[in-house]
Order: sequence, then C-alpha cells, then structure tokens
Amino acid sequence: MAERELIDTIRRLAGRSHPFLIEGIGDDCAVFAAKPATNWLISTDMLVAGVHFDTRWHPPYLLGRKSLAVNLSDIAAMAGRPQFALMSLAVPEDCTQAWLDQYISGFTSMLDEYGCALIGGDTVAGPVLTFSITVLGTADPDRAAYRRGARVGDGIYVSGFLGSAAAGLHLCQSENYDLAASEASPWPELTRCHLDPRPQLELAERVRATGRLTAMQDISDGIATDLSHICSSSGVGAVLIADQLPAHPQLERYCVAKKLDILPFQLRGGEDYQLLCTLRAEDESAASKADLDGLGLFRIGTITAGTGVRIRGADGGEEDITFQGYEHRAGPPTQSP
Amino acid sequence: MAERELIDTIRRLAGRSHPFLIEGIGDDCAVFAAKPATNWLISTDMLVAGVHFDTRWHPPYLLGRKSLAVNLSDIAAMAGRPQFALMSLAVPEDCTQAWLDQYISGFTSMLDEYGCALIGGDTVAGPVLTFSITVLGTADPDRAAYRRGARVGDGIYVSGFLGSAAAGLHLCQSENYDLAASEASPWPELTRCHLDPRPQLELAERVRATGRLTAMQDISDGIATDLSHICSSSGVGAVLIADQLPAHPQLERYCVAKKLDILPFQLRGGEDYQLLCTLRAEDESAASKADLDGLGLFRIGTITAGTGVRIRGADGGEEDITFQGYEHRAGPPTQSP
Repeated sequence: MAERELIDTIRRLAGRSHPFLIEGIGDDCAVFAAKPATNWLISTDMLVAGVHFDTRWHPPYLLGRKSLAVNLSDIAAMAGRPQFALMSLAVPEDCTQAWLDQYISGFTSMLDEYGCALIGGDTVAGPVLTFSITVLGTADPDRAAYRRGARVGDGIYVSGFLGSAAAGLHLCQSENYDLAASEASPWPELTRCHLDPRPQLELAERVRATGRLTAMQDISDGIATDLSHICSSSGVGAVLIADQLPAHPQLERYCVAKKLDILPFQLRGGEDYQLLCTLRAEDESAASKADLDGLGLFRIGTITAGTGVRIRGADGGEEDITFQGYEHRAGPPTQSP
Repeated sequence: MAERELIDTIRRLAGRSHPFLIEGIGDDCAVFAAKPATNWLISTDMLVAGVHFDTRWHPPYLLGRKSLAVNLSDIAAMAGRPQFALMSLAVPEDCTQAWLDQYISGFTSMLDEYGCALIGGDTVAGPVLTFSITVLGTADPDRAAYRRGARVGDGIYVSGFLGSAAAGLHLCQSENYDLAASEASPWPELTRCHLDPRPQLELAERVRATGRLTAMQDISDGIATDLSHICSSSGVGAVLIADQLPAHPQLERYCVAKKLDILPFQLRGGEDYQLLCTLRAEDESAASKADLDGLGLFRIGTITAGTGVRIRGADGGEEDITFQGYEHRAGPPTQSP
C-alpha cells in the first residue's frame, strides 16, 4: 500500500475538530495552542510486533485501542486531560488494507472515547510492524501528579486488580488457547485486560481532587518496578502487604487451575494500567474517609524511611522486590498480519 | 543492553535546561508551558534500518544528527523555532553500546546547535533498528508558513542545490564505494548532503520576514512531489524551468562521469531538506529586490492557474511531473550495527 493512500485513510478517519487545534494533519507540522497558557504534557511509546504485541492473537481493532490506551494511561498518571495524539506506523508489505483499517478504526474509537484529536504521525514501509504513538495532554498549572512526592507514612493504593493482564498474556501464549472460543472461556476478564486495557483518566482526576495525593504513576511494568520508581524519585522506601494485593476472582481460579503462584503475576506482571498512588496519611475524619471510599482504591501498603520496596508475607517475613519488574525482551519477529 | 541503562545514558546526555520546560525526562510525561500563550508546532518521523538509512555506510554520529535534522526541517518549513525533541528507539540485541553512544552523541550535537531540549522518548528491544523522532517548536500566532497560500503569479524558489543528497545516496549504494576513502573523493559534498543534512531554520525565518512568503515546505520527497503538495493544497498549478534548477558542480561532474541524466536527481531525488517556497509576485522596487538578493534563493518557476506541476525544457516542451516523487520502499533489513 502506498504511503499516500494510508495517510488519506488516516486523515479521513481523523477529521475531528478540537478547540485547541489550529492546523491538523496535512502540512509539515500540526499547530495548536491553548489560551490562556496551560501546562502541556507529552508522552510517547513504541510498540514492536513480537516484542510488545503478537498479531496471532491480538485482533487489530483491539490493538489499535490498546496502542493509544497505554499512552493515555501516562496522561492519567499525571492527572492530566488528553488532547492530541500522533500515530506513526512502520508497515510490512504483506500487511493487508483490511487489517490496517481495523487497527485505525480501533485507534479512532479510543480517540473518540476520550475527546482526543489525531494531529499527526508518519507512515513508512518496514520489515517489522511497529507503532510509535505520542499523546499530548493538559494539566492545570502546578497540578500535575509527579512520582517524586511520596513521604514516610503515606498510604500506598492501587485503583484495581493486579496481575490480570499478565495472566491474560500467559493464557494467550499457551499453545492450546483458542481466541475465537474465548467468549466461552472461564477467564474472559483476564484476556480482556491484556487485549483491551482502559486508561484510568477520570479516576485520576478524582484522586487528585481529594487533595491528599502525593505521588502517582500507572502500572505498566509491574508494581514491584513501578513502585520502585516512585520510591527512588521520592527518596523513600515502601512495604507492601501480600494479603492486601487485590486479585480478580478469575485470576485466583486461573492460578489454582494451572497450579501457578499468584504473587508473581501481581507483583511482576506488567500492563495492568491501573493507577498506583500514595496518599497523605489518613485524617480519620468521616468526610475524608468517605472521599476515599467512593474511589474504590485498594490500600496495599505504606511508605517507609530508607530505600527499596519490600513485601510482607502472611508469616510476617519480608522480601526485597525492588525493581523486580517486567521488562520487554526482544524475541523473533512474528509474522506480520 | 537493558532498557534502564539506555534511558540513564540518554538522561545523562540530555541534561539541558530550557525556559519552557517544567519537568523533563523521568516521569510519566514531560511537562512544558510557554507564557504568554504561543502556537505550538509538532512533527514526527519514523526511520527504519534498510528502508530510510543503511548502517553499512552511515556513521552512527551522523545518523544521530540526521534523525533530528529531518524533523527540525519540518519546523523550518513552518518558519518556526525548535524547542523540544522526543527520541524513541527500537534496538536489536546485537547493537553495541559504542554504536548507540555515538548515535546519541550525534543527536545531542544537533539538539545543542539549535537550542533544543530532549524531553522524552522510549527505548525498546526490537529486531530492526528503528527511530521515531518527534519535535516541538513554537511560532508567533498567525505567523506559521503553511503550504496552502500559493497564488497564481507567485515565484517559486528553492534555498539551495537540488539532487545532491540523492546523488550521495546513489554513490553510497554503488558497490565499489569506500566511505573511509571519501575524503579523497571528488564528490564529498554529495555524500555530506546525504549523510549530514542541515535544517534551514534561520533562513526560513528570514524568508518569512520579507513579508512576501505565501507557501513553504521542505524538500524531503523530491521537488516534483513536494511542489505538488503545495499546488494541491493551494488549488493552483506550477511550471518549473529545467535550466533554472540549481545543481552543485559536483553533481554535474558526477552525472557526466557516471553517464547519468541529472534531471531525475534534481526532480525526484529526496532528502535535500532545502526550503521550497512561493513568494508574492515581485515588486520591482530596489528595497524589495535587495531583500531577496541577500537570501541566496534560486528562482525556479512560477505558480500558474490550473492543477499539477510541469517542467519546461530548453526546447520549450513541457512535461507533467505531478507527484513523480521519491517514495521510500521496504527492502530487506540490513544487519544491525
């Protein structure tokens, strides 16, 4: 497929107007401005076939959604509002127009869900299907949520279940797994978490609105690594309580059925895209407690003095898990779709 | 090489402060703002080994410079000022630390030349060396130079020689070419144009300052294609005069020596990264003429009514060359460096 045809397809699909957009796709640069002056957030992720996704089981529509969702999750991690996206693709010759249409359609559906406009990108030929997605968001001045504010005594919270996406990936990688039959699967939520994660944008703004937020990031590399980032940025340590790590019932059943230990999925499984945050030590007033109750956060530990992240088991023993995370490794490229 | 090591290397090299930067590399997003409100420009390019560059002859330091230069050229094409860059890399396992250090060092040298700060990116493992570079610039409100303003009667100008970079690529691709011996080559400027192009940022601002600029873009895909973009965006046609297309003396000698036709290099050769612009029909006052004389622009044709781009030969005959450009095609991946 010629580059210009693909650009035309993208331009057609991305016709959305946006109050901050002055010039969209079609010139050398996109042009945008917000008045009055605002703080801009930017984040970018690169996704390579066979390393970060596998087209054998990832439907292109969901992959398009996920490509954008993982970037929007970085905007959520700053408690920002997404505004614009750029999409660059390296596309192998044998990639079909139908596959790309589905991918772009999924990407567009995620743009629309969050009121985001596509304002640029690049489309090139390349031997390995590769996506490079960039998102721009805005934050009120001095209101972005950084990683570096955690203080001793703060509570550590997550916004949802841990390990579901990693178990979904484990399931997809198992040889006998049949995606077409997945609706009848006893574990559909695990595959959904892997294939179609949701950025926690609205929740992030509500967490910030409590006035108690000290540090936040999203869980992309597993909580052991992601919490280590918060601790090293903030100059503190952390202790997690193993019993308090939330698990989806399907993950519990999956681990029993497959005779797997649940804790590695929860600690080192990546790509849950839940929020991980620290909140100022609780003021036990009823109002403050009610604020938190409404957010559905799970408290999983406490910020401590020192350095590093430890986990405390049911027997009271502690183990160091600092930066024991999930790191994407190069594998052989899979077939292009 | 682990992802975190590479990120640390990049962070060390990219420690520059910037007046618009609030938070640089190290959190979920970079944060920036300009006060008072300004117009932001953004552009992104993806470069794949074996398609857009070849590590067999492209030294990593120059490749780092070129990766950023081609993006800065898009900022020049809008008459903007570069501010920030993001660098994403997919790196094969056999890519050495020394090669990457050279690449990043070249990239950093180009950042420094134009006062640009690196504020983000991504580093991942992948089977094919791939760069995805994004640049942000600023432009005074209502002062960006778009492609769509060309009008019938406007002169068509380029900022420098055409075809040099394409001939340099042709030279590098020829089997007997020895890069190490290139300093003794009779055509060093051709290889320099291919390996280390310069973005025309300063000139672009001076062209805009004449007050006569109606449309501008940079020459990345060859003038036949790039001028077609201006014409289709502006709803006009164009005629180029073959005799007026500027050629470097080394290109003329190279074409004679290799028995090659010079015109295809000039019309369809990509990656010169010169400016292509249209200027309001000349007011013959001395002041206005002197303004243009100082810029060193070459007048190569005239905007006409109708559609499409034609070239007029020495015999007065015209040929249609609309969108007869250079399109990067997928080839087999080269070895990673």
